[in-house]
Amino acid sequence: MTQDTTASMAEWRVTLRSTLGDDIVLSETHEMLPYCRDWHGDVTSNAVAVLRPRSTEQVAQAVKLCRELGLSIVPQGGNTGLVLGATPDADANQVVLSLERMNKIRQIDADDFSAVVEAGCILSELKDAIAEKGMFFPLALGAQGTCRIGGNVSTNAGGINVLRYGMTRELIFGLEVVLPDGSIFDGLSTLRKDNRGIDLKQLFIGAEGTLGIITAVSVKLTPYPDQVATALLGLASLDDAIKLFRRARRDCCDLMSAFEFMPPLAFTLAKEAMPDLPIPIAADYPAYVLMEISGSGLVDIDDLMGRFLEAVMEEGIVLDGTIAASQTQARNLWLIREGMNEGQAKRGMHLRTDVSVKLSQLANFVADAEKAVCEAVPGAVCVSYGHVGDGNVHLNVLPVAEATPEQRVEQIYKAKGAINAVLDRYQGSISAEHGIGRLKRADFETRLSPVRRTLLTALKQAIDPNMVMNPGCQLKIAPNS
Amino acid sequence: MTQDTTASMAEWRVTLRSTLGDDIVLSETHEMLPYCRDWHGDVTSNAVAVLRPRSTEQVAQAVKLCRELGLSIVPQGGNTGLVLGATPDADANQVVLSLERMNKIRQIDADDFSAVVEAGCILSELKDAIAEKGMFFPLALGAQGTCRIGGNVSTNAGGINVLRYGMTRELIFGLEVVLPDGSIFDGLSTLRKDNRGIDLKQLFIGAEGTLGIITAVSVKLTPYPDQVATALLGLASLDDAIKLFRRARRDCCDLMSAFEFMPPLAFTLAKEAMPDLPIPIAADYPAYVLMEISGSGLVDIDDLMGRFLEAVMEEGIVLDGTIAASQTQARNLWLIREGMNEGQAKRGMHLRTDVSVKLSQLANFVADAEKAVCEAVPGAVCVSYGHVGDGNVHLNVLPVAEATPEQRVEQIYKAKGAINAVLDRYQGSISAEHGIGRLKRADFETRLSPVRRTLLTALKQAIDPNMVMNPGCQLKIAPNS
Repeated sequence: MTQDTTASMAEWRVTLRSTLGDDIVLSETHEMLPYCRDWHGDVTSNAVAVLRPRSTEQVAQAVKLCRELGLSIVPQGGNTGLVLGATPDADANQVVLSLERMNKIRQIDADDFSAVVEAGCILSELKDAIAEKGMFFPLALGAQGTCRIGGNVSTNAGGINVLRYGMTRELIFGLEVVLPDGSIFDGLSTLRKDNRGIDLKQLFIGAEGTLGIITAVSVKLTPYPDQVATALLGLASLDDAIKLFRRARRDCCDLMSAFEFMPPLAFTLAKEAMPDLPIPIAADYPAYVLMEISGSGLVDIDDLMGRFLEAVMEEGIVLDGTIAASQTQARNLWLIREGMNEGQAKRGMHLRTDVSVKLSQLANFVADAEKAVCEAVPGAVCVSYGHVGDGNVHLNVLPVAEATPEQRVEQIYKAKGAINAVLDRYQGSISAEHGIGRLKRADFETRLSPVRRTLLTALKQAIDPNMVMNPGCQLKIAPNS
Repeated sequence: MTQDTTASMAEWRVTLRSTLGDDIVLSETHEMLPYCRDWHGDVTSNAVAVLRPRSTEQVAQAVKLCRELGLSIVPQGGNTGLVLGATPDADANQVVLSLERMNKIRQIDADDFSAVVEAGCILSELKDAIAEKGMFFPLALGAQGTCRIGGNVSTNAGGINVLRYGMTRELIFGLEVVLPDGSIFDGLSTLRKDNRGIDLKQLFIGAEGTLGIITAVSVKLTPYPDQVATALLGLASLDDAIKLFRRARRDCCDLMSAFEFMPPLAFTLAKEAMPDLPIPIAADYPAYVLMEISGSGLVDIDDLMGRFLEAVMEEGIVLDGTIAASQTQARNLWLIREGMNEGQAKRGMHLRTDVSVKLSQLANFVADAEKAVCEAVPGAVCVSYGHVGDGNVHLNVLPVAEATPEQRVEQIYKAKGAINAVLDRYQGSISAEHGIGRLKRADFETRLSPVRRTLLTALKQAIDPNMVMNPGCQLKIAPNS
């Protein structure tokens, strides 16, 4: 940091405090640390300050002030993102704006199948409050005890229920957004159907804070599915898992809520993280599926699951299976999936990917990509699992166990290159659900067509001409000349 | 038309023909008439020419040429829109670009739950081709035998299945768009899940051709629902219909595909249009619901409908009901709804609205708005029907029968003003599914917040700085200075 920067840093902090109030501003390094380090702890950065406004008006005031001071803003929800979209980079003039204090549920209207909530509300708290009214907010992901709804919307989060309910985008009625000029876009309507021309809120969903700061959200609710059937199934291959998915999609109609694929290694990894976890199925099938059907009212979910499994086991598509007999057993089945993730983390720094291809090409892609990884990094271990119904696989790679940290970095780099080369042949996506952030920016920009780049640049320059909002996230764009 | 305009008109036509080819260009008034007159025949305009390209490249060539000539372009699909979004206005330099010749289905991939189709494909032809593969494209609306998929996407069409499958926006994987500079946005991926930052295709869905011309679409398919149960129910009030909807949403879970409200007058109007249509229910209940449950595979849809109706009739929410015993009977029930529309048309020029409010306020809104209409236009007849589950009502008004054409226009104007005044109190939408076009532009602009106007203007100026695309539709914006 040069002397000039140090000087302006101090001046900036004084101005932020005097204008916004001490209560809003953090600027001690140790206080800022949790906001400047990403979820995995892979990257730690610094910021001019961390701002923690309590209201939309305070957010707007902060945005206007930062703009005047020439500071840029990195909006942050629960800081659980996986692509460095919510933490500052090396630029010296970045402020983190955390929405954590804007965590009120403004209303839940079961009669209207809607709720209005501030951006900083933790997802699981929102889901619980909605469940108390007999309703359901379907977004479900590993981080739900920590992530915040504004971040979910900003990243258009996916998760395990996408095959039935869609991405976050499809669960949103409206948004309140503080724009880069400090004005407030008030689109918090709960109208289910409103087709007045271009739908501006779509711009901010998935923009990862590059076009404005989402401060509140109105969401779409469904009746709470009080019947849930969960099964863990053993199969001969991923190809069979895909066949089973197609069959389940037809046989179980729109009542299937999750269909997750896991390799046998999942059990080993889960046991490493949670030694006492029961594994109620033989661990030697080549492929596993964790499947959930759910519903409410007059449908009989247990009966449906029973008849479906009977048919597919008789036909030999499913080799073995267990249905959870209680909520605890169902929870334990899902813990295998969570434990598998923790187990990977326990094995040290590794490659996490989040790619998608066409459903009909998923099995071939995984085979080709795993082969390419094995050739590029002999001895590395692939852990491929994910959301079969969405064509979305997390093809993770654990470096060779004995590798030094430097070797790990190199192996991760090589493995990623190998996977992406195969992915490009399949015309797949390098980000099926996690977004771009700063982590995937280079890989994103390399694959960006000139037409898309022109459109994205025009959009950014039109809405954020001074490049105040989350610069360096998604795309590097120079300010308007 | 001034002499100058006549001269340039002739020159423009010569240049269009010589560059694009005679085959592409229509310029005789009688040839252009079907493209310059709206669906209802309310408005007839004129155009420099009608262009009918056969390929995306020809669309791009046409756009570049029009831009050079200073002509603006009105994109048109099946010309079935209800808000004058696809027909030219009084400006003398407009060209209609019809997509009707780009009507190929490029691929239907049942294994991948996707299809790729050109913009000019007629919706019902697409649906039929998809059904032959055992799959289903859920978009369903009255005009489906004539409307084209590109227009459906451009207007983000709604229809009768929105409550289960969403608006057109939620049925789209990707788009190919010719942009205002003639470049081609190639976003025809069929990936189910692709979260690479800002989702550019969202810009063009619902933009009614103001940001570019949609030339092809990739769509999301579901298994064909080979079980369908359809029922016509008599109830005591619209309020009871809303209660019934909430109940059905929970009891029938995600298997309910339509829930339409109609007044008793529907039968009279349907009979006026289709005298032989059977009406299998007493016509003296205050409110009617046409309800559909559907599914595939192992669910038993007839059983579900039977048990549901048994319960709600026992509880007295439903007073009377009939379940279609055959596809013909089901078709006849839906013909009542279609006949009701034709019957209104037979009574002469009338007001059609397409408004939405919160579900919980729908009954009160309809009561208040009908009262306001009766006060504003004594003797006028209100026909309120629509998509209860979406909070979307078509509150139509038939002027006094003896009124002269001039009086009709005046009564329609007064009735619309009365409805919109009530709607504004309920913070409703003046366009739940039809879009804005030119017909609703003034009503739209009056209600537009300054922040939204600024955003929409910035967007238009960023993507279509020369205002080539569908000027006067949705918003009047001056070209960049």
